[in-house]
Amino acid sequence: MKRLCMIVAYDGSDYHGFQIQPNAITIQEVLQQTLHHITGEHIHVSGSGRTDAGVHARGQVIHFCTNSPIPTERWTRIMNSHLPDDILVKETREVPPTFHARKSASRKTYRYTIRNSQLPDIFRRKYELHVPRPLDWEAMESGLKQLIGEHDFTSFTSSRTDKINRVRTLFDCWIKQEANDPEVRHIYLCGNGFLYNMVRNIVGTLLEIGRGALKSSDMAAIMAARDRTCAGPTAPPHGLALWEVQYDAMDE
Amino acid sequence: MKRLCMIVAYDGSDYHGFQIQPNAITIQEVLQQTLHHITGEHIHVSGSGRTDAGVHARGQVIHFCTNSPIPTERWTRIMNSHLPDDILVKETREVPPTFHARKSASRKTYRYTIRNSQLPDIFRRKYELHVPRPLDWEAMESGLKQLIGEHDFTSFTSSRTDKINRVRTLFDCWIKQEANDPEVRHIYLCGNGFLYNMVRNIVGTLLEIGRGALKSSDMAAIMAARDRTCAGPTAPPHGLALWEVQYDAMDE
Repeated sequence: MKRLCMIVAYDGSDYHGFQIQPNAITIQEVLQQTLHHITGEHIHVSGSGRTDAGVHARGQVIHFCTNSPIPTERWTRIMNSHLPDDILVKETREVPPTFHARKSASRKTYRYTIRNSQLPDIFRRKYELHVPRPLDWEAMESGLKQLIGEHDFTSFTSSRTDKINRVRTLFDCWIKQEANDPEVRHIYLCGNGFLYNMVRNIVGTLLEIGRGALKSSDMAAIMAARDRTCAGPTAPPHGLALWEVQYDAMDE
Repeated sequence: MKRLCMIVAYDGSDYHGFQIQPNAITIQEVLQQTLHHITGEHIHVSGSGRTDAGVHARGQVIHFCTNSPIPTERWTRIMNSHLPDDILVKETREVPPTFHARKSASRKTYRYTIRNSQLPDIFRRKYELHVPRPLDWEAMESGLKQLIGEHDFTSFTSSRTDKINRVRTLFDCWIKQEANDPEVRHIYLCGNGFLYNMVRNIVGTLLEIGRGALKSSDMAAIMAARDRTCAGPTAPPHGLALWEVQYDAMDE
């Protein structure tokens, strides 16, 4: 029995998120079906975390166990020859039995992309939010920076969450303009974990700051209120991507 | 009666090309239906040229005539509020009655994009050809440069073409690496006109040069042969985009 870990990218546009659910196609389901097709085994795939319907991943991490004799170095190619063209295995490695894609993760980074221009770029319409009205990016960055650190993020999670502990640590957050495209900016959030809809709710609040409906100095008070209704609306899923998951042990 | 010209971008993935045809959705049809919806008139749209099924456009140019009282400066926004999100009007201007999107065009530029890397980029899979094997880009550029000038391009057009005169002028052709992404290269071809499948057949031949199946010095002989079977296969449509159409009169 071998334990394998894979870095997986996917275009979430046509999926109902990562996690298996009845009557809707999901990333986890396609991965498990593909593994079944390749090995004949019924393999459970664990991800580093769920992504919502329409959210993408550049670096989702999964793990699973298999008795297949396929050598580790062949797995990436075999998976990609069976997966649909909107899911890609980028890397496969064998991991110790103690490795767990979610529990072992030490840092996760999400990226939210916004095109702030009069006209959208139709070739990227599924991967960035188009905002035609001018945004005050300085104010947004100032608001964003107030989230760094250990905080109770109740104001930024869905009231439907079942998590009791809503304290998370954001190690760093930053906004970066895309090279050669001043209209596009990426909002990065790196933390030890994220609550349901947390990134999209933070981005939705930043957009309120960007258009002047909220001030960047309101951010601390919104967080302190621990009340979802104080924050901005949930930003649409298609601008969001699970960018990277890091593991201390694997970085050695 | 007013004559309007529009610069139009489209993602060709879900269309059977530009030109109207029975039992298949096309860009021209969607544009005409949208104009009918907005004006109530039955408007014929003329494009600068056809694009094949799956081929994209960054700068297709169209013209049409209308009696609508809508001011010219409002047209872009009105069209975009009715068009699907894979077709975008970028600019509208009024043109003299002598203007014709195809006949008045003086230069057309096509761009073909290739990602030469082990793994594809799934987020750009519909807009670039993924070639995993190494390509000799120097040889390809050298072959490409031999096409510059006035030539009979019979070797690079479909044998099904109905055009008798297959002489066209390529003003310039060049290959450009994408900024910040050394795996991606764009092949640009700028000429006074292009035959059916001409760009895709040229790119298919360049790919044969790139993998060493043909030499760059073969290019002149392939062109001189005026025989489609001497050239390489037709490259897939999704890497191709009608990049720009230029009009001398409008550049004044």
